[in-house]
Amino acid sequence: MRETYAELLEHTRTIQDLAAISALLSWDQEVNLPPRGVASRARHKAALAALVHEKICDPLLGELLTALAGADLSREISPAAAANVRELKRDRDRAVKIPRNLIRELAEAGSLAQQAWAQAKARNDWELFAPHLERLVDLKQREAEAVGYEDEPYDALLDEYEPGARAAQLDRLFAELKVSLVPLLDRLRAASRQPDDALLRQHFASEAQDAFGREVLRDMGLDFAAARLDRSLHPFTEGIAIQDVRITTRYVEDNLGTGLFADLHEGGHALYELGLPLEHEGEPVASAVSLGIHESQSRLWENCIGRSREFWQHYLPRLREFFPGRFDKIGAEELYRAANVVRPSLIRIEADEVTYNLHIVLRMELERGLLRKEIRVAEIPGLWRDKVRLLLGLEVPGPAAGPLQDIHWSFGVFGYFPTYTLGNLYAAQFFARAREDLGNLPALVAAGDFAPLLGWLREKIHRRGSLLPAGELCREVTGSPLSCRPFVEYLENKFEEIYEL
Amino acid sequence: MRETYAELLEHTRTIQDLAAISALLSWDQEVNLPPRGVASRARHKAALAALVHEKICDPLLGELLTALAGADLSREISPAAAANVRELKRDRDRAVKIPRNLIRELAEAGSLAQQAWAQAKARNDWELFAPHLERLVDLKQREAEAVGYEDEPYDALLDEYEPGARAAQLDRLFAELKVSLVPLLDRLRAASRQPDDALLRQHFASEAQDAFGREVLRDMGLDFAAARLDRSLHPFTEGIAIQDVRITTRYVEDNLGTGLFADLHEGGHALYELGLPLEHEGEPVASAVSLGIHESQSRLWENCIGRSREFWQHYLPRLREFFPGRFDKIGAEELYRAANVVRPSLIRIEADEVTYNLHIVLRMELERGLLRKEIRVAEIPGLWRDKVRLLLGLEVPGPAAGPLQDIHWSFGVFGYFPTYTLGNLYAAQFFARAREDLGNLPALVAAGDFAPLLGWLREKIHRRGSLLPAGELCREVTGSPLSCRPFVEYLENKFEEIYEL
Repeated sequence: MRETYAELLEHTRTIQDLAAISALLSWDQEVNLPPRGVASRARHKAALAALVHEKICDPLLGELLTALAGADLSREISPAAAANVRELKRDRDRAVKIPRNLIRELAEAGSLAQQAWAQAKARNDWELFAPHLERLVDLKQREAEAVGYEDEPYDALLDEYEPGARAAQLDRLFAELKVSLVPLLDRLRAASRQPDDALLRQHFASEAQDAFGREVLRDMGLDFAAARLDRSLHPFTEGIAIQDVRITTRYVEDNLGTGLFADLHEGGHALYELGLPLEHEGEPVASAVSLGIHESQSRLWENCIGRSREFWQHYLPRLREFFPGRFDKIGAEELYRAANVVRPSLIRIEADEVTYNLHIVLRMELERGLLRKEIRVAEIPGLWRDKVRLLLGLEVPGPAAGPLQDIHWSFGVFGYFPTYTLGNLYAAQFFARAREDLGNLPALVAAGDFAPLLGWLREKIHRRGSLLPAGELCREVTGSPLSCRPFVEYLENKFEEIYEL
Repeated sequence: MRETYAELLEHTRTIQDLAAISALLSWDQEVNLPPRGVASRARHKAALAALVHEKICDPLLGELLTALAGADLSREISPAAAANVRELKRDRDRAVKIPRNLIRELAEAGSLAQQAWAQAKARNDWELFAPHLERLVDLKQREAEAVGYEDEPYDALLDEYEPGARAAQLDRLFAELKVSLVPLLDRLRAASRQPDDALLRQHFASEAQDAFGREVLRDMGLDFAAARLDRSLHPFTEGIAIQDVRITTRYVEDNLGTGLFADLHEGGHALYELGLPLEHEGEPVASAVSLGIHESQSRLWENCIGRSREFWQHYLPRLREFFPGRFDKIGAEELYRAANVVRPSLIRIEADEVTYNLHIVLRMELERGLLRKEIRVAEIPGLWRDKVRLLLGLEVPGPAAGPLQDIHWSFGVFGYFPTYTLGNLYAAQFFARAREDLGNLPALVAAGDFAPLLGWLREKIHRRGSLLPAGELCREVTGSPLSCRPFVEYLENKFEEIYEL
């Protein structure tokens, strides 16, 4: 059995290497690619994707997995071996079910839809994008049918990003969340004392923001001998290898928060990638277990740490040095309040901690309806308007600030948005546990000592990679299944104090 | 036959795509890779190399090539088709002859040797590198035997970089060159009036050098919408795609020439890559035909243009703007003379136009002797000393300034050095022809109008890609086979005037 398993690993490493190479191509595309290189880059990525698909569907891999099926690998070899076989089987089962021509059709339709989306967004014209979205929804329905599901087609898509998650379960979580968040938002909006973020909207030179951001990242424990920070239109993280993790950010000179919270967010993703088990590099077990868990790491650093009172207490003296004159008469408490203004907005990526998840709830309701064929593409702008009015109390002036704001649908990505909210929930639940385990976490943050927190995250989450499915990992780390409660309590405690309710 | 050819192209495109991806990995390694990412990068490159080898050795490719053998593709399909089949057959014939385990042994030995070379060079200690070089020479001898040759093993290695070139032919060319260059060098060294390059060795801020270099590159016709300029330890060019070409440079603040001539040199390589036939992208015909021809393009821009009187006449006013105060009292004639100081030196990459090729002659003599087993590795430092004394009249203080200066041998690259000199010879022969065809080239350069020259190079050389083998291309473009005469005449005319002989 050990020989079969060794052969399986050998075969797998090529797949993982090709995926890593593809990640480099994606990073390079956003950071370095000359504009006229876009067509060749699309061809190179398609070539890699075809090779990965070929290797995953290789009958040899099927035979090796069959030979190992039923064995108690966790006992007979190692828990890592069991996780590797579980993940490979999942990938292969999904890949072999999707017909080759459907993959090609999706790639082609996505490529056309992305161009149409960019035009439609620029012109604020839903009609330019609608036929492409219809085509993509149709193809994704076919993909869901091919992959198969128990309850509803959305599950088949969700499972790609959040293995094991089901729409019905998320529906319950999100409904509970909505029931808590909407009244909280109403109370905050009605509060007599509203915090003000004007002091974060002074002029901050990009170079100083970059230097400050790098200091914060180093303080968090990011090792620049194994990581890079660059700039791109939208911040993102790519793990090319466990010791080669690339993050990007974006600095806006009249808003300190944009770049700083991007640094913290992507830094959290990067620390997860850098903390994966190096001794298993090239194996599925040394990958992130789910997008929700990945997002929990970015949100924990961005929000639970970066938007905490102690963070601003610690960094105020440094901010005064990096940005002379900007913070001389400002106290840490004012900064803390400025970093925590709750203000419903139309754009998801600009949303605060309270309203962010309402944007996700809205998207998931629409995606699920589209996949179930309960909603037609033509109805999206109207439904979007109604839901934004209901959830956020705002009027949508046009589709560019509505359903055209996000790129996801344009490349056929449905079922991805919910992982953002799962990330917020996991983050709050992990953070509550870390506070208990560490005892003095606020004091550590106030002293700029993030090492104990990083050590806790590495031991409990990062080093485990994909050893346990996300839900089991949550139970093992926190003692409870995923719940809305820690997140809602975290928000209520924090914002009721800030807004003096 | 057309169907067979279409199938062949289909199969080929994956090979070309993987090679392009590998080029991106190499570029990224020198420009971006965090230090701890080196091990994973080596693994990813090895994975791609194995896939390329697998695809080239695929029996299907052999069958397709056999089916097309003997057909007059040039007439029946197109000259490009004939070139594609010729190049694919060459690549495959070579690849299938080299045993898989030899490839692995070479990769492993090269990896160890590179580390040992870096240490040996830093410590100026030949003995640290010698056993690795012995191992590599042994493996390359085995490679040469596996590939096969008519006259001598060196031919089998040379052919990889300069298809069709033979050691005996280069030997004749190089002997002729030596006979002309050594006396010319003696005359220049004895001249009473020696030019001085002190004015290029003032302080020049890197940022201003970068801005000036980009202006020159744009003037040459480099399209930054399809190209990038970055910095690395050693300047180089990677063509990722015909519309995605990356060059690197290196600025030294007390020497304007280092960066500027690197910009011109790599810019020449880049213009070649950018000028390849886009309609054949992904086919062998849309690749550089040989390293000698590639180097001819870099040398032509670096030396024939960048070290010409008219170049400095045109750029003197701009230099005064980019570097205020540095050139106020200096005339174009002084700059021209400063850019053309001939001074024997120990280091190849710092050599002037006259002595550069003596460095290559030396290396080829040693490489050829090693491959023929006429020279032992232990004799290299002594032979190097003797040859440097004879050719350049200098004493070698130690191996770091001698046989350890170049990285090539450490990754098993033998037969590559001669292509540098071939590049110089082709450059002079092409340049002489371009001057005839264009009539007023010096006046155009003096006016900063490089478009007619680039147009000529594109039509005669770049757009042809690998349509004709290098030797045939030279005959077709210049009317004569490759010869030393144009180069020697170019040097004699230029330097006898500068040195007032």
